[in-house]
Amino acid sequence: MNLRSFLPVARGDEPADLVLRNGRVINVFTGEIIRADVAIADDTIAGVGSGYEAREEVDIGGRYVCPGLIDSHVHIESSMVTPPQFARVVVPRGTTTAVTDPHEIANVAGVDGIRYMLDASEGLPLTVYVNLPSCVPATHMGTAGAELAADDLVALADLRRVIGLAEFMNVPGAVLGLPGAIEKLLAFQGRVIDGHAPAVSGKWLQAYVGAGPGSDHECLTVDEMLEKLRLGMTIFIRESTAAKNLRALVPAVTPQNSRRCAFGTDDRHPADLLDEGHLDHLVRMAIAEGLDPVTVIQMATLNAAEWFRLRDRGAIAPGRRADLVVFSDLKDFQADMVYSGGILVAQDGLPAGDWPVPAVDDSHVRDTVRVDWEQLDLTMQARAERMRVIGVVPDQVVTEHLIEPATTVGGMAVAVPERDLIKIAVIERHNRTGRVGLGFVRGLGLERGALAGSVGHDAHNLTVAGCDDVSMMTAARAVGELGGGLVAAAGGEVLGSVLLPIAGLMSDQPVETVRQQMERLVTVAKDLGSTLHDPFMALGFLALEVIPALKLTDQGLVDVERFEFVPLWVE
Amino acid sequence: MNLRSFLPVARGDEPADLVLRNGRVINVFTGEIIRADVAIADDTIAGVGSGYEAREEVDIGGRYVCPGLIDSHVHIESSMVTPPQFARVVVPRGTTTAVTDPHEIANVAGVDGIRYMLDASEGLPLTVYVNLPSCVPATHMGTAGAELAADDLVALADLRRVIGLAEFMNVPGAVLGLPGAIEKLLAFQGRVIDGHAPAVSGKWLQAYVGAGPGSDHECLTVDEMLEKLRLGMTIFIRESTAAKNLRALVPAVTPQNSRRCAFGTDDRHPADLLDEGHLDHLVRMAIAEGLDPVTVIQMATLNAAEWFRLRDRGAIAPGRRADLVVFSDLKDFQADMVYSGGILVAQDGLPAGDWPVPAVDDSHVRDTVRVDWEQLDLTMQARAERMRVIGVVPDQVVTEHLIEPATTVGGMAVAVPERDLIKIAVIERHNRTGRVGLGFVRGLGLERGALAGSVGHDAHNLTVAGCDDVSMMTAARAVGELGGGLVAAAGGEVLGSVLLPIAGLMSDQPVETVRQQMERLVTVAKDLGSTLHDPFMALGFLALEVIPALKLTDQGLVDVERFEFVPLWVE
Repeated sequence: MNLRSFLPVARGDEPADLVLRNGRVINVFTGEIIRADVAIADDTIAGVGSGYEAREEVDIGGRYVCPGLIDSHVHIESSMVTPPQFARVVVPRGTTTAVTDPHEIANVAGVDGIRYMLDASEGLPLTVYVNLPSCVPATHMGTAGAELAADDLVALADLRRVIGLAEFMNVPGAVLGLPGAIEKLLAFQGRVIDGHAPAVSGKWLQAYVGAGPGSDHECLTVDEMLEKLRLGMTIFIRESTAAKNLRALVPAVTPQNSRRCAFGTDDRHPADLLDEGHLDHLVRMAIAEGLDPVTVIQMATLNAAEWFRLRDRGAIAPGRRADLVVFSDLKDFQADMVYSGGILVAQDGLPAGDWPVPAVDDSHVRDTVRVDWEQLDLTMQARAERMRVIGVVPDQVVTEHLIEPATTVGGMAVAVPERDLIKIAVIERHNRTGRVGLGFVRGLGLERGALAGSVGHDAHNLTVAGCDDVSMMTAARAVGELGGGLVAAAGGEVLGSVLLPIAGLMSDQPVETVRQQMERLVTVAKDLGSTLHDPFMALGFLALEVIPALKLTDQGLVDVERFEFVPLWVE
Repeated sequence: MNLRSFLPVARGDEPADLVLRNGRVINVFTGEIIRADVAIADDTIAGVGSGYEAREEVDIGGRYVCPGLIDSHVHIESSMVTPPQFARVVVPRGTTTAVTDPHEIANVAGVDGIRYMLDASEGLPLTVYVNLPSCVPATHMGTAGAELAADDLVALADLRRVIGLAEFMNVPGAVLGLPGAIEKLLAFQGRVIDGHAPAVSGKWLQAYVGAGPGSDHECLTVDEMLEKLRLGMTIFIRESTAAKNLRALVPAVTPQNSRRCAFGTDDRHPADLLDEGHLDHLVRMAIAEGLDPVTVIQMATLNAAEWFRLRDRGAIAPGRRADLVVFSDLKDFQADMVYSGGILVAQDGLPAGDWPVPAVDDSHVRDTVRVDWEQLDLTMQARAERMRVIGVVPDQVVTEHLIEPATTVGGMAVAVPERDLIKIAVIERHNRTGRVGLGFVRGLGLERGALAGSVGHDAHNLTVAGCDDVSMMTAARAVGELGGGLVAAAGGEVLGSVLLPIAGLMSDQPVETVRQQMERLVTVAKDLGSTLHDPFMALGFLALEVIPALKLTDQGLVDVERFEFVPLWVE
């Protein structure tokens, strides 16, 4: 905001740039709905009331106007599109601010990845704040593309639009005061530190909160949420593609505690963004579940702004940024018009006007699939009669830890599609280390061919699962040749693909295009026999060595419950 | 807090230093009252729950325990005692944190005065935060001992225990964007800026809020408070010795807006502190007026902490400072025990244990009454038949602007006690400029003698009012000889005094002593004919050139409504 342009308009000496006339203004400070005009000077709200002259007037005819919505926790990479494309889908739905944790791209490209997300979101109608990824790599049992120590994060902390530290997943590190963890917490004392403490409770939770993390978006139950609220945590109620917690948590919100509740979308895939929406979907759901609409809007605006110390937004009041949503129905929140910094940027669900295109050098986050293909060997010598097998659980990121008899051909263990046992390889793809983890998986359902992708949480190595080595090699190499993406192949033939050239995680196409590409690719996977709703999403979590029970990284099989490597072969 | 001592206790691996067993814990986050123990490690709350082992245990037998109270706005100087003595009276009543605006001492001693308040409060059981005085001097129509520009304030802003900018009284400066004012606001953007906007409303109020000040403690009515709340202001409900607003404002507090309400005591004199109390008095009153007790405690703790961004206190939760009040009756808040940083510092209304005595060099704030007595001349040549007279309004700081016929003796205007018209002089006392403002006042009621004092808001020049020049000179010189204080005299004889050696504003004695001294002095003043409850308080506001209607500074008579000097004599 610019006081020089603000003050004369605010005190009524000069005309406003824009006035929205005849609004029902949601006052998130008092919970009231007040009939008033909203005057705007430059990018700032100059006043709420009446009697403002203006260069431009828009009569909103008694419709509601609320502050632009604020997403408290999102990984933009999970939308599979770049920040500008993400903005084009969420801003027309009413979101004008997002606090993103570039955890995924940081695991691929480290500081370059974080800087890319900042650069690629510069000047958008969506203000993108970055909370710095606190746990890169997730563990040392998988090989990420980067390692971010406390010093690396501190060096970024004062960049514009950087807030603090994102989801601090290393709970034991915080509670036990372990090196690595504790330096990061101490370095960010006095700044915002977001937490991540699924199912942590009792004294461990209290130690965790005292160590610094002050929010949580991992609550599953009312009791869990209330316990965290009582410790002063701010709760982001999450409704993502993979984790749908909103309905379970809404009953925990009370008039006394709602000030500490906000919303986060975490990971929402293209189809969900397009079909359900973004924060507007969460707002509609929470109201449909019985929460007071104004309370819900407070949660989606002011409460998030207060947690993140964003004192320039989150309310319709003089001096705040003119991020505004005009809507018609308090019970069915649908953004009719969206203003960002006083400019109409979306109308009737579509972008309006000319949006700036951030000038960004993305060369550091392209061509990130680096594998020495000549050295790659996917054959597996059988060393015992029984082996560990990862059991996919449909629509979940947890897996089962199975023991199955091996089938061998010439001393080599092979896939047996008829028993739904196929091979899986996790190929280090950041630094050509040649590391490959090999194993078996049940539950993808493939009858032939192979699926491969450069999205593999959290290290994002190249993960490929298939019924034979030729198909696997074809799929994996195709991912490499695309510079990142998702591929289905059979034998020597690539049957379908989605290009994800940005860090192997994001397309450079609009979200509608990515959604169509994904649907075509899933259809191909289903032709190959896959029985899952989204086999690539399942594939993308098989390497995540912090989620039980059995996972495979480029370094080997991990028994997550014991938090250690285990041999493939069972004597 | 120290993570190394906190974490093992919090997670239950090591015994706590202290556990308060069997408490009813006020949870200010959720509004609940929860039966639990409170474990303390070092100066920090390690946990709330059960099963804590401890080196020391205190069974509080089901009594309530709430966070230490936080005074959002106080001028400690108005208690007429130093910070350590102030602490001794307020901490046993439950206040463990005070945000003070050293506006009075800064008008006398500038930066030295502010540093004295910080030094003199170091290590006390009361954490004293300083918000920097934003308006020294109040205007240029009176001569203060210092002038604080934006640069002077910025130089102090990063000192430990300095928060931001205190009550920004220069409303026109902010709204009109005037030099001097605007530099201060811009310099403190991003920090806490407290407001001060009595009766300001409409567009001017909106411009003022947008310019930076975000709180207000000057509301008189529900409507005024609601208007300010709607703009996002945090409201400190004030109950001071001179301004009693609490009963009028309590009806404005709702479950939706209470998160933005807190309490401030502003100025409380010794007798009120001792007889009524401090924040505990406001808490009792607000509950008696019908507010929910837990809401009131939220206002007196968490809400203040959130406004001032004091994230280490304001709640009973792990990681927060162990400032705790144990009390028995939710409807009649009386502190039984007070803990500050985990140490029992008061019990049954009295200090407990050994309190640290801050080592402070106060030489820069002593001997601040500097007048060239040989040059002082209080005679007034009559220049017309009628003159302006300041009319005292009992128990108010506003005055009337009267016109009265003058009585002359040998061409000199003289006091006429039988018409309740006595002389008043405001003598510049900081820098021996020799400036003296002379005038007449009605309403002090003196029949003989004179009253003088070095407390004279805001410039704190030496103010003396009396029935004859000899008495006035005696009283004024006595103030000078004391190095600051309040004096009653008649003829050549000093009849009574209160020593205020610290900046001419504060005693170095306990508040009980000052209270007795004050009562004795007021008795003397009443013997001289004074009809006022506290004639020295009235005297102390006669020079305040920002409060209507007619005031006298060392530079002359000020018509406050016209904001300009006016001649004493009316043609």
